[in-house]
Amino acid sequence: MSALASVERDLRAAVAAEVIAPSAAYLTDQTEARGLGGRADAVALPHNTEEVAEVVSWCYAHGVPIVPRGGGTGYAGGAVPLDGGVVISLERLDRVRSFDPLLWRIEVDAGVRTAELRRVAREGGLLFPPDPGAAEQSQIGGNVATNAGGPHAFKYGVTGAWVTGLEVVVPPGEVVQLGGALRKDVAGYDLKHLLVGSEGTLGVITAAWLRLTPAPEAAWPVIGFFDGVRGGVGAIERVVGSGLTAAALEYIDSETMRYAGASFPGEVPGGAFAVLAEADGSTDEAARIRADLLDVFGEDALALYAPESPQEIAALWRWRDGLALVVDAQRGGKASEDIAVPLDRLGEAIEASLEVGRSFGIPACSWGHAGDGNLHTTFLLAGDDDRELELAPKLSEALFELALRLGGTISGEHGVGFVKRNWLAKQLGPRAFELHVAVKRAFDPQNLLNPGKKA
Amino acid sequence: MSALASVERDLRAAVAAEVIAPSAAYLTDQTEARGLGGRADAVALPHNTEEVAEVVSWCYAHGVPIVPRGGGTGYAGGAVPLDGGVVISLERLDRVRSFDPLLWRIEVDAGVRTAELRRVAREGGLLFPPDPGAAEQSQIGGNVATNAGGPHAFKYGVTGAWVTGLEVVVPPGEVVQLGGALRKDVAGYDLKHLLVGSEGTLGVITAAWLRLTPAPEAAWPVIGFFDGVRGGVGAIERVVGSGLTAAALEYIDSETMRYAGASFPGEVPGGAFAVLAEADGSTDEAARIRADLLDVFGEDALALYAPESPQEIAALWRWRDGLALVVDAQRGGKASEDIAVPLDRLGEAIEASLEVGRSFGIPACSWGHAGDGNLHTTFLLAGDDDRELELAPKLSEALFELALRLGGTISGEHGVGFVKRNWLAKQLGPRAFELHVAVKRAFDPQNLLNPGKKA
Repeated sequence: MSALASVERDLRAAVAAEVIAPSAAYLTDQTEARGLGGRADAVALPHNTEEVAEVVSWCYAHGVPIVPRGGGTGYAGGAVPLDGGVVISLERLDRVRSFDPLLWRIEVDAGVRTAELRRVAREGGLLFPPDPGAAEQSQIGGNVATNAGGPHAFKYGVTGAWVTGLEVVVPPGEVVQLGGALRKDVAGYDLKHLLVGSEGTLGVITAAWLRLTPAPEAAWPVIGFFDGVRGGVGAIERVVGSGLTAAALEYIDSETMRYAGASFPGEVPGGAFAVLAEADGSTDEAARIRADLLDVFGEDALALYAPESPQEIAALWRWRDGLALVVDAQRGGKASEDIAVPLDRLGEAIEASLEVGRSFGIPACSWGHAGDGNLHTTFLLAGDDDRELELAPKLSEALFELALRLGGTISGEHGVGFVKRNWLAKQLGPRAFELHVAVKRAFDPQNLLNPGKKA
Repeated sequence: MSALASVERDLRAAVAAEVIAPSAAYLTDQTEARGLGGRADAVALPHNTEEVAEVVSWCYAHGVPIVPRGGGTGYAGGAVPLDGGVVISLERLDRVRSFDPLLWRIEVDAGVRTAELRRVAREGGLLFPPDPGAAEQSQIGGNVATNAGGPHAFKYGVTGAWVTGLEVVVPPGEVVQLGGALRKDVAGYDLKHLLVGSEGTLGVITAAWLRLTPAPEAAWPVIGFFDGVRGGVGAIERVVGSGLTAAALEYIDSETMRYAGASFPGEVPGGAFAVLAEADGSTDEAARIRADLLDVFGEDALALYAPESPQEIAALWRWRDGLALVVDAQRGGKASEDIAVPLDRLGEAIEASLEVGRSFGIPACSWGHAGDGNLHTTFLLAGDDDRELELAPKLSEALFELALRLGGTISGEHGVGFVKRNWLAKQLGPRAFELHVAVKRAFDPQNLLNPGKKA
């Protein structure tokens, strides 16, 4: 650790970027709901890549930890500074550098918000498919750094599948370009994909070249309500087994529906487990897939809901995107994880994860990206009850253990951050974990980039 | 290097795998056409992962280089042993370990041939989209190790996009699992993608978990013939700019057509530049895209060819896949590279690459994966003329220089191998190249895995 008298004052004197005292907004992310908060010495607000490089360079020369920060919407504590150092917030790197709609590509600063990126693409007739929650707050740099997913990852893949190039500041403070406006590149190891999902522990992502795809003419969601986990997971397996290429394939368990049913923009049969699928493509194609989904769901659904108007469809997705907030509001606190399992273990994983809550006497509910085997099981904690908040790590660990037992992963899309760091070695095994650590050391020999995270 | 009296004899005594003396078939790949050949001390033919690990372990303990070998269809010399050591041929690891058609996934040994994998998937109603040339010889392990592409990478992405897990033997001889039957996983750095495209320099891939996708009902190719590079590239840009999601978008320049026109299964206007696009999807969807392609091509095409019968379509793709062989046969030798550039530089890249041939007085032709900006410019060398064969490196280097000048890459899909190794640092820049070398060292501290390749 640094022997500087004042990191904030010294950094301010040394670099062009604005440097401010750490305020609460820069010390937390979504893990605040489980009681996690951090401590930093200063916050740097660079305007461009050169200013980022200057801050990294100064920190590296002075042995000061560096915590890159995007929109702060993470669920793993990845943006929480654990024990001092400088938070580098990318929020002012917010330019679209270039947009070539006729070539299906865009280059953006890391601080461009995900929803803004999607809007710009859409105005050019194109789609940037990844749609993690909190798109109005989250930034593309953070999305890349966590390899964010979302409902449409089922058809379109996660964020990393759309990244063709990255600009990154790596220790001790140099700017490197990994890839670019290229759709194919096998020169050199795939360092770009190594940075994707690295959670700020290998470098600070300052810009990204992204692929885009023509926006589908139509996107129609269909919801089926089923009898319990078995019924719902059976429907999910039938969709996949029928070879239906749904754009999204989500589940919302009956407990989540109990909290969120009142705001659902349609009728909800009591106690039902919901499956949401989306049909997209040309109008004809989307109509065909929608009809097939209704057929497959119809075999044993308790009820169906298939909105057609843009307003109803938008309302349905707003409702889906708001699930986490509705659940948050129930008891004031929560612990939520994002384990993923092979699709054939999905039902077992949902049931066992709910059983974890029961065994601790904590209310639990579960929803997630069914087609990708990705669960968001959430434990509802009383926000003012320290005893319950202290259960958060134990509840999470029971989920991680479950994931590994079922051949899954401790993180499908949120990353490892601080919360899961002790579980990574268990998942990877000793030799792969050694290689993981060796890669970290190759990029960041002083362990100053987001220390205590990811490994 | 090893001080062993006989690597072949000592290895045979030490391991369970069959060990044979190196025969010519194990010392070359497609670079033989430019005069490249290697030398090895022994060839190991393991039957399973444990036998691979045992060979790697023995080699690592004795300081003996290890050259993993798939189907030997590479164009960069990646499988050519440069200066002794043990070739590990994966050909006997040829089992489909598990296939779950209803879950869209398959696990295969590294030595399963690409065409066989595609056949198995197809029998289950599914598609494994990557379709590099020489699919009957190439193996999935080699495809992963080079991140192979092919015509349909335009819509579906390269091999790495379909890999969800790898089993790899890493130094000093341990088996690691990276990922698995999981569609999403952000625990740990993306070591799996690091192995993809690593050309046997980080580990020996012994098995892969692959995603599959429902096979399209229909796939209809359309060929337009245009007036020169400008006309053809204009049509390519119109297809993309119209938001048409073609499954493949290929070009075949007029010089290539001059060699291959006689075997084309239709009429070819003299001197024309050909653009091949494919429409796929449900029957309706493919028909719609096909009609749109014919419209877009029709604006200024000299002629169109749009076969409808399965026999005609198969004949067209056989013709396309055979281009390299037809060109090879012209003068007995060749140097062929696979640079890729941003799509807006495609026309300039094709013209300048042909100009390289003219400036050396060597016949040149060019075809490739237009939509991905990926050129296969080929210089036709007299196979019995040493003076011409000696030009191969100079011709290739002129292409690499061109690629970098246009913001492109020295390799879109063949890899760096031996042929391009001196150009990698130029493309990556000094700091990214240092990181590249550091990653290699982290995996292979003794530099025994395919030494002299990739870096």
